Amino acid sequence: MNPVDLIAKKRAGEVLTDAEIAWWIDAYTRGDVPDYQMAAMAMAICFQGLNPNETARWTGAMRDSGEPISFEGSAGFRIDKHSTGGVGDKISIPLAPIVASLGLQVPMISGRGLGLTGGTLDKLESIPGYRTDLNLEEFKKTVLTTGCSIIGQTGQLAPADRKLYALRDVTATVSSIPLIVASILSKKLSEGLDALVLDVKFGSGAFMATFEQAQELAQALVRVSQSNGVACSALITDMNQPIGRCVGNALEIAESVEVLRGEGPADTWELTERLAIRMLRLSGEAQHDDEAREAVHAVVGSGRALARFGEMITAQGGDASIIDDPQRLPQAPHVDAVTAGCSGMLKQIDAQAVARAGHVVGVGRERADQDVDLAVGIEWLVEPGEQLDPETQIARLHWREKGQEEAVEHLRAALVLEGEVRPRTGRVRDEIS
Amino acid sequence: MNPVDLIAKKRAGEVLTDAEIAWWIDAYTRGDVPDYQMAAMAMAICFQGLNPNETARWTGAMRDSGEPISFEGSAGFRIDKHSTGGVGDKISIPLAPIVASLGLQVPMISGRGLGLTGGTLDKLESIPGYRTDLNLEEFKKTVLTTGCSIIGQTGQLAPADRKLYALRDVTATVSSIPLIVASILSKKLSEGLDALVLDVKFGSGAFMATFEQAQELAQALVRVSQSNGVACSALITDMNQPIGRCVGNALEIAESVEVLRGEGPADTWELTERLAIRMLRLSGEAQHDDEAREAVHAVVGSGRALARFGEMITAQGGDASIIDDPQRLPQAPHVDAVTAGCSGMLKQIDAQAVARAGHVVGVGRERADQDVDLAVGIEWLVEPGEQLDPETQIARLHWREKGQEEAVEHLRAALVLEGEVRPRTGRVRDEIS
Repeated sequence: MNPVDLIAKKRAGEVLTDAEIAWWIDAYTRGDVPDYQMAAMAMAICFQGLNPNETARWTGAMRDSGEPISFEGSAGFRIDKHSTGGVGDKISIPLAPIVASLGLQVPMISGRGLGLTGGTLDKLESIPGYRTDLNLEEFKKTVLTTGCSIIGQTGQLAPADRKLYALRDVTATVSSIPLIVASILSKKLSEGLDALVLDVKFGSGAFMATFEQAQELAQALVRVSQSNGVACSALITDMNQPIGRCVGNALEIAESVEVLRGEGPADTWELTERLAIRMLRLSGEAQHDDEAREAVHAVVGSGRALARFGEMITAQGGDASIIDDPQRLPQAPHVDAVTAGCSGMLKQIDAQAVARAGHVVGVGRERADQDVDLAVGIEWLVEPGEQLDPETQIARLHWREKGQEEAVEHLRAALVLEGEVRPRTGRVRDEIS
Repeated sequence: MNPVDLIAKKRAGEVLTDAEIAWWIDAYTRGDVPDYQMAAMAMAICFQGLNPNETARWTGAMRDSGEPISFEGSAGFRIDKHSTGGVGDKISIPLAPIVASLGLQVPMISGRGLGLTGGTLDKLESIPGYRTDLNLEEFKKTVLTTGCSIIGQTGQLAPADRKLYALRDVTATVSSIPLIVASILSKKLSEGLDALVLDVKFGSGAFMATFEQAQELAQALVRVSQSNGVACSALITDMNQPIGRCVGNALEIAESVEVLRGEGPADTWELTERLAIRMLRLSGEAQHDDEAREAVHAVVGSGRALARFGEMITAQGGDASIIDDPQRLPQAPHVDAVTAGCSGMLKQIDAQAVARAGHVVGVGRERADQDVDLAVGIEWLVEPGEQLDPETQIARLHWREKGQEEAVEHLRAALVLEGEVRPRTGRVRDEIS
């Protein structure tokens, strides 16, 4: 095939055949299609799109550019969860041991934080000794024995995505729904899954600004996952305000432990529970949502889910005693109370402003090669609906040596006030399957 | 500046500033903007376009990526002609000496044939000894002493265009009017011109299929040339049938000599005369078209234009005796008469079919690194309006060792017949200044 003809075809808005897509991704992986041709193709796709079948085939071809994990011959139902990323989004951490303790297997390959969004791997690495770099054999063994394992990307899975992801970043071709879908799913579909649940977020702290954009992305993700043979459903959730009480790597581990004790903030619990219900329904372990909800409450109430989290930590080399003694997690040298500095009824806490506050004290990174500070972050002390006065303590800021003053400004800027009290609503706005 | 931001801006349909365009082209020339970023930008431009000012600045920046020729300090009016390319288009060859013998200076940097379109350089190289590779000092000297010189591209002029032209070819971004305009003019505006005339062609033998497309391209070319300080006007001409009688490198030199003797085919003469008139008007040498026409007829009638062609050939190392003895041009070993094989009134000779016939006997090349056969080609013996019967000799095919049978098929396929005779019309359809 001639790569120029394929670019011209997409530029003209025509549909690429299955064979053309398979050839294109394979040639790109091998280096026979150079970056400049892929850049032109990616930009043409930004304008002309890929139809559902093209997106499914593009995703499948990217998955097949590497060697997908196979659990063939092992009993069990493999299911994973993916979130499009948010501020304070630690849901994977309590979720995986909850559903593992209910008999599912969760082979989760997760990412690091970048820009304003935190990463599950960074959070787990605040647990002393926890290894996110298990090789695929160790990973499979942990999944099969412990029921869940959370590790980082490996070069063997979907190498075409790794190349294309880096290229899209430098060619202004990131925000194309078919390319986003293919990137997310080519990695997830390499995990040897039977099913996948998605948390697609919208709002000031999310990649997608509006509900409608999140809905479009969720529909495409569900369709493409299904047409690649992996059952899938998605929740569309509000990311206008940070999830839960804490933003920060070690702080979010501590909050995750609270959730596993049945004590965490209401919204962290809501998301964890709703996603766990979807996972149990997709696996067939529960026939109704109520049945699934009861099962989730039971394993949390009995301490089995928390124990399972400890087993996963231990299996990955980490110090499981942090569960009973969160002081063993990295501690920031300074913890300051932050006051509101203004009066009014708190309507909302703006996720993006909170992310910026975390950013300036070192929670995240700008570039992939930077280190994060595991100890620093923010604990919120107030919730929407509360009446603030200037002396109200709104948050505790955990900081080391930089960003303290700027962070306080961001935290105060995060306070959205209004005259009247509105009833608090849940985060989940839609469900797609 | 951040290249990703500039690509994103164009992708979003925004207007790039003069400073952004200057930075972008300079960074691309230096290699700081890599090919994959330029490929993404070029594809974004294919969809979002460049407005007239952006196109003018992009063109100027490409011109300034090299060292434009300067004739500063030398008397004279420098003017060139550019054609978008056609089948049998040898017009530059008689045109340059005609206007040079009328006192203008023509510093013409020309191209080679590619695909179905012939190239002026290939034609001139059929003159024994003719050098198309003069360096820029030799070129300037020839222009100043002989009044005209026709040479090939040099690395010193518009290097950004050379890089981008090659990149567009492999990224399906050739057919974007602003990028075509910038490519044509960045080279032409590097010649140190006062004015430029353009022959923008449409039809089966041209890059632009329709009159409207040619008009759009011509308007953009004229506007961008003018806003870069070079007076410009364009003819829009019909390229549905080959120009003149001959298609082939040496054969077209022989036809050019006929034109310079006042004896060439009517349409070759029409285009040469009309373009010469535009050049004399742009230079101010003639106040009216009639005055210009008379001057052209005078230098041809007196033999001065033909003598000037001989002087240019001599100045570039070629054998000027081919003017009096065209047999000194390369001769094909076989010359066969081709019969019509059908009956009817000849309405038109299809340019693309004729180009294919030339192609299969070796007139042109598929790839830039291939050689052409200087001797082979086609001489037409019939004109639209003639009655054909199966035995009518329609053409003479000059061939060497390949393509003869296929060429005959293409030549017969080029015959467009009809019941009624239509009056012959000229080729020029519009004039833009």
